[in-house]
Amino acid sequence: MKRWIGYLWAVSAPAAAPLLAQDPLAAIRTYRDAHQGAIVAELRDFLSLTNVAGNLPNIRRNAEALVAMLEQRGAKAQILETGAEPVVFGEIGDPSKPTILFYCHYDGQPVNPASWQQTDPWQPVLRTKAIEAGGTVVAQWPGASDTVNPDWRLYARSASDDKSPIVALMQMLDAWNAAGVAPPNHLKFIFEGDEEAGSQYLAETARRYRDLLRADLAVMADGPIHESGRPSAFFGLRGIAGVTLTVYGPIRPLHSGHYGNWAPNPAMRLAQLLASMKGPSGEVLVPGWEDDMIPLSDADQRALAEFPHDDEQQRLQFQLGAVDGRGGTRHQLIAHPSLNLRGMRSLFVGPEARTLVPDVAVAELDLRLVAGNTPERQVEKLGRHIERQGYTVVREDPDSATRVNTPRLVKLTWSEGYPAGRTPIDQPVAQAVIEALRSTGLGAPVVVPTMGGSGPAYVFTDILQQPFVVIPIVNHDNNQHAENENVRLGHLFRGMEILGAAASAKIPKAPATP
Amino acid sequence: MKRWIGYLWAVSAPAAAPLLAQDPLAAIRTYRDAHQGAIVAELRDFLSLTNVAGNLPNIRRNAEALVAMLEQRGAKAQILETGAEPVVFGEIGDPSKPTILFYCHYDGQPVNPASWQQTDPWQPVLRTKAIEAGGTVVAQWPGASDTVNPDWRLYARSASDDKSPIVALMQMLDAWNAAGVAPPNHLKFIFEGDEEAGSQYLAETARRYRDLLRADLAVMADGPIHESGRPSAFFGLRGIAGVTLTVYGPIRPLHSGHYGNWAPNPAMRLAQLLASMKGPSGEVLVPGWEDDMIPLSDADQRALAEFPHDDEQQRLQFQLGAVDGRGGTRHQLIAHPSLNLRGMRSLFVGPEARTLVPDVAVAELDLRLVAGNTPERQVEKLGRHIERQGYTVVREDPDSATRVNTPRLVKLTWSEGYPAGRTPIDQPVAQAVIEALRSTGLGAPVVVPTMGGSGPAYVFTDILQQPFVVIPIVNHDNNQHAENENVRLGHLFRGMEILGAAASAKIPKAPATP
Repeated sequence: MKRWIGYLWAVSAPAAAPLLAQDPLAAIRTYRDAHQGAIVAELRDFLSLTNVAGNLPNIRRNAEALVAMLEQRGAKAQILETGAEPVVFGEIGDPSKPTILFYCHYDGQPVNPASWQQTDPWQPVLRTKAIEAGGTVVAQWPGASDTVNPDWRLYARSASDDKSPIVALMQMLDAWNAAGVAPPNHLKFIFEGDEEAGSQYLAETARRYRDLLRADLAVMADGPIHESGRPSAFFGLRGIAGVTLTVYGPIRPLHSGHYGNWAPNPAMRLAQLLASMKGPSGEVLVPGWEDDMIPLSDADQRALAEFPHDDEQQRLQFQLGAVDGRGGTRHQLIAHPSLNLRGMRSLFVGPEARTLVPDVAVAELDLRLVAGNTPERQVEKLGRHIERQGYTVVREDPDSATRVNTPRLVKLTWSEGYPAGRTPIDQPVAQAVIEALRSTGLGAPVVVPTMGGSGPAYVFTDILQQPFVVIPIVNHDNNQHAENENVRLGHLFRGMEILGAAASAKIPKAPATP
Repeated sequence: MKRWIGYLWAVSAPAAAPLLAQDPLAAIRTYRDAHQGAIVAELRDFLSLTNVAGNLPNIRRNAEALVAMLEQRGAKAQILETGAEPVVFGEIGDPSKPTILFYCHYDGQPVNPASWQQTDPWQPVLRTKAIEAGGTVVAQWPGASDTVNPDWRLYARSASDDKSPIVALMQMLDAWNAAGVAPPNHLKFIFEGDEEAGSQYLAETARRYRDLLRADLAVMADGPIHESGRPSAFFGLRGIAGVTLTVYGPIRPLHSGHYGNWAPNPAMRLAQLLASMKGPSGEVLVPGWEDDMIPLSDADQRALAEFPHDDEQQRLQFQLGAVDGRGGTRHQLIAHPSLNLRGMRSLFVGPEARTLVPDVAVAELDLRLVAGNTPERQVEKLGRHIERQGYTVVREDPDSATRVNTPRLVKLTWSEGYPAGRTPIDQPVAQAVIEALRSTGLGAPVVVPTMGGSGPAYVFTDILQQPFVVIPIVNHDNNQHAENENVRLGHLFRGMEILGAAASAKIPKAPATP
């Protein structure tokens, strides 16, 4: 490991102009513009490693490659064993400086190769632009120092989600090594291999390696940047809980003619129960639904008001005749806890429909949580609301005696879920991050108090007690999770600047814990 | 044909005691007790003809057998062509007497032979009792004049639904021929071959052969007798209409985190819409739902009050904690038009559930109609109710412009359906039928103004303008439509008396139409 550091310094130092030593961002720009082909080549090679979440041997090969990639830049690197998918940890820079922990994940979603426009999602293909815009295959890969058209796209599983940010961070270290710039902060890296399978081991890993992962700021580099391309910062992620409701009717479907006005219909009862949960504008009617929500600060509110929203354009794109939320913008609305009916089923629709009173009806809900919510509390509120509608709530399949003796019966089960994590924007560390993004000159930062989606921010905010921000770099039209996933190379190149700025942020260092 | 009549009279007349000539029921009892094995043999042979609805060549073979069976008894018989499944028509007796038209069907439901307890559902098997009660196979079929244990059951497709009533009617004619009893009324028979496929041609056949089918009473011999075994008469059948509701959300499912508080959820909207249609006790809230219903007569109401209901036993059997209908008995409730939610679906439940706002939600309803209702009017009331909930109702898939410009959009489609048919119990013809059933001595008749199920009674009441009654004979536990369909032979034997009594009913003869 030390050998590598010496080697890199030895070859890089002569090339570094003395002026750049003081400017990490300028060093990144200079290096990037001279090595575009090499940057694309490293991403291509990394994307050639099959990485479906849950395939342990493949995932471990990716982890070993990451250790090598970190060590190649002079970082200390190791694999943190979790019992399943390994977590890769790296560290570089002066420990006396403030510490920034970068999180990315190196696993990917499963693929259906038949629906891709290339033979193998792990044989990356370069195109002149997006397939939808008529992009054609670039037969010849660029040479290491060739300039690359920023509109070109690299197609492969995980091209955007989430290997590009990893390569951007690695190339950022190369740029500093080449310019003789010391990392502006003490940097740590944690690369997860189980994100697409639900980050089952991340919380436990954080608890186990708490000291190793200590930092003054956690930066999650994942997800798409704002459509405008302006540097974006999301200071929180929502939590989530999945709830399944099962309403019972007769023990078997009954002839709707002979029993239809007499045997209670569980599908209708479920509809009535669901209808009691939301008002006509989609407002949640469950009492106390927002009670635990930590109020947004003035700075949070201001950020939401300033957010460049495109709600009307999206309404038209999704062909919606109206939107919920009584006038709030989409980003204002997703700062609140949600109750979403994501699936509903009772017997058959379409040609299979038969004249029966159903025996059972099922609804699937997802509850998005905001800072202050816990899955337990939100589910408990929902359960009490259901009881107030006259239902007896059980957690297991009811036996015959329970069915016969309970006028209104619902089974409520829920998957564990996890809480939200959010760092208020008015904290100095958040302001330092925003300032750093502004310093890129790539546009006024788009700042959002909390992202609509869920993610394990709480691992950082709650378990590791770190300020947290998501800083994405990839294009919004990257087909994440779907076929023909891709990254626009201009976004990768700008991403090096954005993540470089984040790594250079002038954040306060927490006093050493006793 | 004449040859057969002569033959039958020649062999039968000597056996007939002169006293029986005046008593059709006594003639049936005497003949039946002496020919039990022969009766079972005719049913066995008829059940050996494959008869799945929709298989035209097989259905036609059944029709030809029926013509022969009718002619064998001295009835005039012919096939009425419908364009598809043929209808068999027969006629016997003195045309100057009142005319009774018996309806049965000779087609059967499809089978899954693997789930039957016998090799072939069209190779009838005799058992000592029901399979569930431990019945074992009777290896040796009884001889023609052997007495048969009434608990024995004959297992085959259509054993109950609906070939037993046909054989009972044929054997009734044999009994009268044997005893030298002339048919007490002018009898007509119409045997349908498309009932299990929805009686698509019956209405048109009735219109086409209106004169041939003219009668003073129509008796439908189908379905199970009351569990008590008492002779049962249902003076109406409900009509039906199927309705499909489709509520639209975004043009594709959206991420519930990013869009969940903003994009309207079509599953939740559908739930709210459905909840608006019924109250907590299952009462239909659609304005005017019962407006067109022809009120039940005092006699109808009395029959419902006297009906030997077993609602509490059924509640326990079906494991219901409560029933709908605010205290009405099941048979009182099914005399009203219904609105049944028979299926409901939006995206996924179970392991497939994903965190999405659904793009669409679908509900399937069946509306049961009572006398006075038409499918058109009930569907129109439902559509107006939906509009009053703020929805725009369309009949076709909406285009993008409609979606974008319509705040609340639902597609309502419906299948044609048909109206109910019912004959008020206080009519003299109905009273004559009840009196005839009482004369069997098999128990006080169970009288129901309308059956819960739907059926083409309207073909008789509306198209042919005939009083109508359903008189079933087979056991209620006959596994109709399912595997191991069977008939209890005691029910078949009693059925000869019951249908014989109906055929002998002292009904008024309508004045000849000009």
